[in-house]
Amino acid sequence: MIVKSVAEIPVQQVDHPEAKKVSIRWLIGENSPAPGFWMRLFEVQPGGYTPRHQHDWEHEVYVLEGSGEVFSDTGPRPVAAGSFVLVMPGEAHQFRNTGKTPMKFLCMIPKSGK
Amino acid sequence: MIVKSVAEIPVQQVDHPEAKKVSIRWLIGENSPAPGFWMRLFEVQPGGYTPRHQHDWEHEVYVLEGSGEVFSDTGPRPVAAGSFVLVMPGEAHQFRNTGKTPMKFLCMIPKSGK
Repeated sequence: MIVKSVAEIPVQQVDHPEAKKVSIRWLIGENSPAPGFWMRLFEVQPGGYTPRHQHDWEHEVYVLEGSGEVFSDTGPRPVAAGSFVLVMPGEAHQFRNTGKTPMKFLCMIPKSGK
Repeated sequence: MIVKSVAEIPVQQVDHPEAKKVSIRWLIGENSPAPGFWMRLFEVQPGGYTPRHQHDWEHEVYVLEGSGEVFSDTGPRPVAAGSFVLVMPGEAHQFRNTGKTPMKFLCMIPKSGK
C-alpha cells in the first residue's frame, strides 16, 4: 500500500508547444506498482490550457478546484469543482481555465496511454 | 464525452454489515461506456468506516475532504484532503473517518472489480 500526499510529489511544467501555463504531478505512474491505470494531478493557471488533441486511450477527470471549460466536438462545455469528465478513446479534448483562480483536476489514464 | 457534476449523481447508502455511515456515488460505472476503469465518490461520516476487506483488484484513492485513516497490514495510516492511496490487489484495507467533518474520497477500480 502506498499512502502519500500531493505535497510530496514534485511539480513538473508541461513542456508541450500547444500547452500554456500547465503543470502536472504524477501521483501514481510508471514508478509505482499500479497494475492497470495511473493518476495525475494537473494545475492550469488562469488563461492556460492543455493541448487540444486526441489519442487512442480514455481520460477520466475529476475537477478539484477552480473552473473552466472542456473542449469537445460539440463545443466548449463548462466545468468547475465537482465536475467529472469521461473522454472516450479517439475524442478530441482540451481543458481551459477560464476563471481567475488555478484550476486543478485529477486525470486518470490506462497504463497503455501516456 | 460525458461531462457531469457530482450533484447530478444519486447518493446510495452502502448497505454492508461491516460498513457504517458510508455512502457512495457511482460517477463513472457500468452504465457508462468507460473502457477500463470506474470512478466512485465515497462519503464517510464522522465515526464511520468502510468494510475491512481485501480482494483481487486494486484501488486508487484520492481524499477530497476531511480526514481519517486507512487501515493497512502495518497499522493505521493517517489521510487527509490531498492524500492519495494505492491499494494493491490482495491488500487488506479500510477507510475510517476519525475527524469531525465528512470525509470524501474518490476511489477508482478496474472494471474487473466491483
